[in-house]
This record gives sequence, structure tokens and C-alpha cells, in this order.
Amino acid sequence: MSKASAAEEQTVNVYGWAAKDSSGILSPFHFSRRVNGDNDITIKILYCGICHTDLVFVKDGSLMPTNYPFVPGHEIVGEVTNVGCNVTKFKIGDRAGVGAMVGSCGSCNNCKQDLENYCPKMLWTSVGEYYDDLRNFGGFSDKLVVDHHFAVLVPNNLPLAASAPLLCAGISVYSPMMHYGLSNAGQHLGVVGLGGLGHLAVKFAKALGMKVTVISTSPGKQKEAVEQLGVDDFLLSHDQDKLQAAMGTMDGILDTVSAPHSLLPLIELLKTDGKLILVGAPIKAPELPHIPLMLGRKIVGGSAVGGMKETQEMMDFAGKHNVTADVEVIAMEHINTAFERLAKGDVKYRFVIDVANMLI
Amino acid sequence: MSKASAAEEQTVNVYGWAAKDSSGILSPFHFSRRVNGDNDITIKILYCGICHTDLVFVKDGSLMPTNYPFVPGHEIVGEVTNVGCNVTKFKIGDRAGVGAMVGSCGSCNNCKQDLENYCPKMLWTSVGEYYDDLRNFGGFSDKLVVDHHFAVLVPNNLPLAASAPLLCAGISVYSPMMHYGLSNAGQHLGVVGLGGLGHLAVKFAKALGMKVTVISTSPGKQKEAVEQLGVDDFLLSHDQDKLQAAMGTMDGILDTVSAPHSLLPLIELLKTDGKLILVGAPIKAPELPHIPLMLGRKIVGGSAVGGMKETQEMMDFAGKHNVTADVEVIAMEHINTAFERLAKGDVKYRFVIDVANMLI
Repeated sequence: MSKASAAEEQTVNVYGWAAKDSSGILSPFHFSRRVNGDNDITIKILYCGICHTDLVFVKDGSLMPTNYPFVPGHEIVGEVTNVGCNVTKFKIGDRAGVGAMVGSCGSCNNCKQDLENYCPKMLWTSVGEYYDDLRNFGGFSDKLVVDHHFAVLVPNNLPLAASAPLLCAGISVYSPMMHYGLSNAGQHLGVVGLGGLGHLAVKFAKALGMKVTVISTSPGKQKEAVEQLGVDDFLLSHDQDKLQAAMGTMDGILDTVSAPHSLLPLIELLKTDGKLILVGAPIKAPELPHIPLMLGRKIVGGSAVGGMKETQEMMDFAGKHNVTADVEVIAMEHINTAFERLAKGDVKYRFVIDVANMLI
Repeated sequence: MSKASAAEEQTVNVYGWAAKDSSGILSPFHFSRRVNGDNDITIKILYCGICHTDLVFVKDGSLMPTNYPFVPGHEIVGEVTNVGCNVTKFKIGDRAGVGAMVGSCGSCNNCKQDLENYCPKMLWTSVGEYYDDLRNFGGFSDKLVVDHHFAVLVPNNLPLAASAPLLCAGISVYSPMMHYGLSNAGQHLGVVGLGGLGHLAVKFAKALGMKVTVISTSPGKQKEAVEQLGVDDFLLSHDQDKLQAAMGTMDGILDTVSAPHSLLPLIELLKTDGKLILVGAPIKAPELPHIPLMLGRKIVGGSAVGGMKETQEMMDFAGKHNVTADVEVIAMEHINTAFERLAKGDVKYRFVIDVANMLI
């Protein structure tokens, strides 16, 4: 057997959509994944959410250079179609989800503490290469082979399309709420930006019995935020009078906005010992209002997705409290239009691709 | 009796040194303080430390406008010479200390939690007016009348001159170490800047059994830091190789530097979940390296002096562990030279004025 054909035997054919260059235009793309290994499961992808990071990466506007062809997608849900011999958590037919990462070293201090997301060797789902040197390709594709450690069970009561965004947007807000102690009934949480992450932060916070104030630049989102999402208050970023009145009232703020913005008005909204947690990632570093930080013993903290144990906990919490995203399901063939609309913030609140019905 | 003479009866004459204008030059100054009230103690000031903030204020380079004549000084120690009828903590002859504040509302959430330092109505020792509309004047003067709540007992075993800097520099580093959980034996603490605050942070940290690394721009401070202060490692801010080698090793960093500097190398020195605490106050806001913050779940926090309960705890800890400042005691008549030297960082590590021997 030739070397080439041996390699071929160790891969499976996958069909998806990829950006081929920095135009960011996606088109059909055939590629390979590894065959299902002893620790792997194979997922027939049914839905995949579109995260703002996908938008950044397809156009190479990111913090690391994009390696084309680039298959986006890291809010993946689907049905398990194969399980390796070491896998006990999943069986064929289970509903599984995969988020932003597909690998980590497993032995560093972070990995040992279920913080694979902070492992220095963490592998992103759609970026770089896997340990076998095969490229990692994301969930805008019909199937995924993944180490079972990096997949979670999706509770059976949750609608699948609306669950996909939990895998990145959901854990990105749930994890800092838990870690920074912003998850207690009666606490007052500010949520900056009412997009994919923000609306899920509101839903988790309300499920936890918190008071929630949204801080947004979009007056058009106010009515729905109050009536549909049940937010307690809605502050427009330019309404100085309302901002002034709300100063010193919040225990914490989750800042989900990736557009450049000032941190000062947010820090002023916090009580003494309040916490401003950044989960959006503007390209440009903001200015730090250090004096208000000192005079109120406040903190600015960061957070990036969450570990696998916590991701499963988040899914279980979502199942128990019926927390899912408000989604607009689109056909894969409309992906380029969806990216254009996402760039303008024209979605309530998350696009999810109907991968199962992708034309081949 | 005329109104004027009634008012005179309610004040006592004080002699000190004041800056009269933004030249920042200090000269002798006679002024008044209130007579000792029921809740007050009067302190014959023996020593007063010189804080960097005094330097900022005398030249009106501060965040709030300086009201001249300005009497600096908020690291005050001396002997109690009078006590009001409601005072039980102090008796005549006790050694008392007063730091950065002399009043707070006593009823807000912060005051109720012994965080008078974060009370919105907190009164600085040498800034603004007291509740009786008399100006607050600092400790570069022969006596102070102060509400006993804002004074602490200085342990008898501590040398008095070297204790003065504990009242501001000491509590400014001790409080965040306690609050942010950076006070455990075996933890690795970085201390940025080896001045008045920094060298006390090192002493507290070593007394607590921590590993301490100093990060400094001054190679000349290395030998003494290691040999006299017992720091475990000394990183020069421009030594990229050593900084690189130390990346990800620190549980927390106390940044005591008030000159502008980048936060990025400091955040990189932290472990996952590490804490960079700002206690120096550069005039210009620094840039916040938000992406490294997110990818390591790190925080940047602030802190400003400490509450009175904690200030007494800090004094008691200092007494138990013999922690005092390394000071250069100067005559009041040399104060202008001392300010010039302080502006150049030419002091190891704190100037303290021998107020008791001030010429009159």
C-alpha cells in the first residue's frame, strides 16, 4: 500500500463552506477530517451558530492571521454517529455539542483544574492544526470528528437550533458570572450590548433571580428587551441623565461589545467593589480609568469561554431553566448575506445555520 | 462678646509649613484648628511622612485643584495630649497615628462595612473643609485635632519616625493584599516600584511568608533589595529575557508606580486568574491590554488606602512582625529640598519630617 493511500484511509471526506481568501466570501469546500479514533466521537452536524469571531476570522481582521481556506463555526450541535472504544459519555444517537475548542494538553495546571480554555496549548475548533497535523476546520460542514472530552450532551428538552449558540455565546457569559460571583439572586447585573452574548447573559441572569439592566446604543432594542427578555431597566449609552442616576448601583457588568467604547461610564455604574468583566474583544485596547477603579476598589476582569466541565454544567442549567438563544435559522447558501447583516448588527440575536439541509 | 472673638475661642493656634501657591515652595504658616471636641483627640505631632501625593498637591498637579495655602502631610504620628469625653480608645500620653482621612459620613454602606475610605463623603486629611467649615490642614504642623475614629494606636515597640509611613504607604499596600487574597504564605507576589509603598509591600509580603519579586526601572536598587529587604527576585523592567522567563509565574502584582508605564508586561507576568492591583496613581490613564486579560481570566483592580479597622489591624500586624519603613528623617526647614529629591526618586525609601524639633 502506498503512503498516500495509507493516509487517505485515515481520513474521512467532509463537505462544508469556506472562505478562500480575505474577501471573506464563503463558498463550497471539500476537505478531510481524521477517522474516528478511540477517544473520538463523530457528530453529524445539524446546526451551527455564527459568532462574531467567525466574521473577524473570515476577513482576516483578527488577532492571529487566518489560514485559508477557512471553515468557520464553533457553535456546533448535532447527532452522534460514531463513538471510539474509550468513550463512555456518548452513544450513537445522542445530541452532542462542541464549542470553541477541540483540544488541550491535559496536563498543565489549568487543564488539571478543568480550565482547558486557559491551557497554553489549547486548540481552537476552526483554527490551526490538530495533534495529527491535520488542519482544524469548523462547523460550517456536515460532520465533525472530535475528542469526546471536548463535546457536551445537549439536554433533550432543548430545541437544537436554539441550543447551538450556548456552546460559545452561552458559556462565554455563564462562566464569568459563576467565576466572578455574579450569579446570586438579588444582585444587580449590567449587560452591555444586546447581541448574541448579551441576550443570553440576560436570560441566565433572570433565571438566577438577578436584577438586570441592559446598556445599549440601540433604542430599537428597548421594547423587546423589556417585554420579551424581562430586563428590569434599559440604559441608552448616550443618555447621560439616566446613566448619572444609575451610578454606583451595579454589582457587576458583563461587557459583551466588540466595537470600541469607553469603559469609564461602565465603571461609574458599579458599586464599591464592583466588577466589570470583558467578554467582547474590541480590536483596539481601551483606556483604563484607573483612578475611579482605585477610588471604588473596583476591578476590570476578563474571561474567555469556559472549561468543559463548566460547559456541561451550563448546558444542564440551560436545560433545567429552558434557556436557549433567540435565533434566526438560515440556509448555508445564505451565509454570505448573513455575514453582511451580522457586520451591521442586523440579527436578533444569533444566526444559526441549518447545516443538515445544506445542498450538496 | 463679639462674634469674631467667640469664633476665636473655638479654635486653637497651630504652627506649620504650607505651600502658598503652585510654585510648591513651602514656608512657615500660622493657622487654626477646632478645639478638642467630645469625640476628638489632640495629637502633638512628632513625625510626619512625605507621600508622593503631597508632592502632586503642593504643585497643583493633582486631580482636584489645590486650595492654597496648602499644608501637606497625612502620615502623622505623635503623642495624645487631649481626649474628648466620648473617647475610650485613647488616653493622654498614648502614641497615635493619623493617615489620609479624617472624616466620613458614618452611615453609608461603605462606612457600615468599615470601608470609610470608600465613603462618597470621605474627608481627606489635608484637603477641603471639615464639617464645621474649617479648612483641613495636614500634618506638616505641630498639632492635630481629629475625631478619634480616624486615629489608630501605634504599637509601643515600633520606632515612631519609621512608623509614620505606615499610615498611608503601609495601609495602601496592606489593604489590597488582604482584600484581593494576596497574603498567603507561598504565593508569589510581584511588586512594581521600590519606593515608599513598594518597600513596605515587600516587608509585609515577606512577613506573610510570600515569595516576592520586585519589578523596577532602577538597577541601583537591586543589591539592597535582595540583601536588605530579602526579595527573592529582582526584574529590571527593560530586561526582556528575564521578563519572558518570569511570564505566567505570579499570583498577583502590586503596582505602586505613579509614573506612566505599560500594563502589558505586568499582565503577562501573572498566572491564569492572576491579579494586577493598582495603588500608584499615574495622572494619565494607561491602556488596558484586554485580550491578554481575557485569555488568562486575569483582573486589574484598584485600591485606595484602607478603612480604619483595617488600618489598626495593619499597625498591630506591623508591631507583631516589626514592620516599619526605611526612612530618612529630615528637619522641617529642609522640606523644599526633600520635595526636590522626592521628585527625582532620590530617597530610600521615605522622607519623614522631625516635626517635634521644628524651629518656631
